[in-house]
Amino acid sequence: MTEAPVNWGTLAATRLSEIATCSRPGPGVTRLPFGDEHRAALTHIEAWMKAAGMTVSLDAAGTLIGRIGPTQADTFYLGSHQDSVREGGAYDGIMGVALACLAVEKLNADGVTLPFAIEVAAFADEEGVRFPTALVGPRALAGTFDPAVLNLADRDGVTLRAALTGFGCDPQEIAALARDPARTLGYLEMHIEQGPVLEAEGHALGIVTAICGIERHTVTFTGRTGHAGTLPMQGRQDALVGAADLISSAHDLGLQDTDLRITVGQIDVAPNVVNAVPREARLTLEIRAPEDRLRETIGAQLAARAGEIAAARGLMLDMRRTYAQPAQPCAPAFRRALLAADVTHGGAGRELASGATHDASAMADLCPIAMLFVRCRNGVSHVPEEYAAPDDMGRAISVAADFIAGLSLS
Amino acid sequence: MTEAPVNWGTLAATRLSEIATCSRPGPGVTRLPFGDEHRAALTHIEAWMKAAGMTVSLDAAGTLIGRIGPTQADTFYLGSHQDSVREGGAYDGIMGVALACLAVEKLNADGVTLPFAIEVAAFADEEGVRFPTALVGPRALAGTFDPAVLNLADRDGVTLRAALTGFGCDPQEIAALARDPARTLGYLEMHIEQGPVLEAEGHALGIVTAICGIERHTVTFTGRTGHAGTLPMQGRQDALVGAADLISSAHDLGLQDTDLRITVGQIDVAPNVVNAVPREARLTLEIRAPEDRLRETIGAQLAARAGEIAAARGLMLDMRRTYAQPAQPCAPAFRRALLAADVTHGGAGRELASGATHDASAMADLCPIAMLFVRCRNGVSHVPEEYAAPDDMGRAISVAADFIAGLSLS
Repeated sequence: MTEAPVNWGTLAATRLSEIATCSRPGPGVTRLPFGDEHRAALTHIEAWMKAAGMTVSLDAAGTLIGRIGPTQADTFYLGSHQDSVREGGAYDGIMGVALACLAVEKLNADGVTLPFAIEVAAFADEEGVRFPTALVGPRALAGTFDPAVLNLADRDGVTLRAALTGFGCDPQEIAALARDPARTLGYLEMHIEQGPVLEAEGHALGIVTAICGIERHTVTFTGRTGHAGTLPMQGRQDALVGAADLISSAHDLGLQDTDLRITVGQIDVAPNVVNAVPREARLTLEIRAPEDRLRETIGAQLAARAGEIAAARGLMLDMRRTYAQPAQPCAPAFRRALLAADVTHGGAGRELASGATHDASAMADLCPIAMLFVRCRNGVSHVPEEYAAPDDMGRAISVAADFIAGLSLS
Repeated sequence: MTEAPVNWGTLAATRLSEIATCSRPGPGVTRLPFGDEHRAALTHIEAWMKAAGMTVSLDAAGTLIGRIGPTQADTFYLGSHQDSVREGGAYDGIMGVALACLAVEKLNADGVTLPFAIEVAAFADEEGVRFPTALVGPRALAGTFDPAVLNLADRDGVTLRAALTGFGCDPQEIAALARDPARTLGYLEMHIEQGPVLEAEGHALGIVTAICGIERHTVTFTGRTGHAGTLPMQGRQDALVGAADLISSAHDLGLQDTDLRITVGQIDVAPNVVNAVPREARLTLEIRAPEDRLRETIGAQLAARAGEIAAARGLMLDMRRTYAQPAQPCAPAFRRALLAADVTHGGAGRELASGATHDASAMADLCPIAMLFVRCRNGVSHVPEEYAAPDDMGRAISVAADFIAGLSLS
């Protein structure tokens, strides 16, 4: 009598529903780093790693690492983050850890032996909800960790240093976690898409081309306030009317390229009362693009447009770039290999850019990266309704296992 | 030896600078109703009224009334309000009281005797800064006072009833203040323009055609939020983009008619963060017009436009009218008489609508109204920099005196 074949996708779903209980009370999943719910989650992840034959350790940055393979061998990394946003879902982040463990478990089950080692990393904090920083774990591995962030505090005044120490980690040792790029083969992260594209087009999986670069601006138009009844329309210097022009222009420009994301997410007006012409409108402008040149061109176009609007509306303009993060392209060889594995398993090899930042963004400073997106229901993430289907997760495990096995051939 | 002729404008300026000291400490003038600074102001106004030969009394609504003329005669009213906004100026409101007293004083000086009585009213509260109501004084005269507002409280919890009582007024007697329309000839109010039109065109005075009607709407667009990186532009339901469309349309429509004022003064967006597509944008839309039909047509056009925007952007729309106040036309005979007097004194007879509400808005329920605007520097009001020139005020006094004297001929 032979054993029934493992349904890897169903096993992933079961594990994810179990670990979802490691959460603060309330709707969905709230699992911040370095607290009781993180500690509880680690016992689940440790079990997943051990089921894949891995040796398990918690590193100084709070990353749980499972390792399998020859001690001195070059290493390929898989991973994602254990934490969630407040009242988030059961998939964003943790699914990538679960699927990575199962991909290794499947390779074992398939009898594959690899000439390199694998490490699966369950990073502590990618969402940046508790501390005003994130990506401590992958930055430690990449050797780009900035010790100054240890002094940042959460809203209870607990510093990251104190939180790590209380979690059994020695912040002094973080610097020693940096991996040798020459001994690092690459990094693969599996993650829900967090968008509607794969679902809309009927693909279970998507191969990421690049993690979009991001730039953010604050734009302040300043005009003149006045009584909404006595100030004639002609000659008004209405800051909100100028802001409306820019919001429309930004949106229209974003529609011209499917790789672009342009968002005015925040606007604050003064004096903000029903019967006064707005004196000041301050808004945020965020541009994301998979290519830095495209992003910078768009940024320059919108700066020019803001200047035209200010001139036409009699407003003063203060526009400043507050943040910039370059795009991180995925390694072409990895993209090709993931695409081939996806096609082998019935996929169409759909490629797409990642608009969101991931742990892979930091790992890109260490080694070539790859990302595999799993379709999510209704395109939503960061909410309790977040969902990926077991069949899709099973497909991702198979594709990842094939991809890893294929690395040994090259 | 003859006395030097009185310079009425200079006298007005002197009196206004003296009464400006009746203010709470801080920049400009802060004179709220029914407090110490109001009490102090009444001693000045009482002196102005007595200088014009009037008998003076404080009525139950806190209005200081100066009366001159036969006891049983029909009465013509002049007036304005004594109160200011917080950190306001020395002209808005109180100038109308000062000029009214001086117009009567000038009529006396010129030896004019009138077959009707004159009452000058120094209303307590037009700005509505202290209590969430206003126009108590003129409404009492017009018989439209609603006793329910006596229960409204200021931010210290003092009700209007308690404030009146503490000021020596008996709220029970307010109902008895209502004047007989059959014995009331009309009402003239002089006020700074609070706008830039007269200054821009070089006119000292303007004759008001009507006090604009006002309607206010709250407009809420609701779409879908999402991650600004992962949600493609195509298919976004961005509430702020819809709001921007409406802000632009409202402004453009307002520019088509010089009598119109259309203002989006307030906007609040949720979740209002840099990296999330706005789910909800809630804004106020205010329309003012000197003709109700025009205002209502514009309101309907903008409601239709909001519907089109919602349909085009995939948004839900909730638009509701929260306030409506009809326009109050000035009496055509009064307009003609003021225009003739203005021309006599070197003016061009510039007519214009009042975008702001005034005590005259409430007096219109009692009798025909007239308003005379005085040019103000830089078009500003409600700020310490508020200013009207002595010469312009002197011109207003002469025009008002001629206008009143002319009433006796009809």
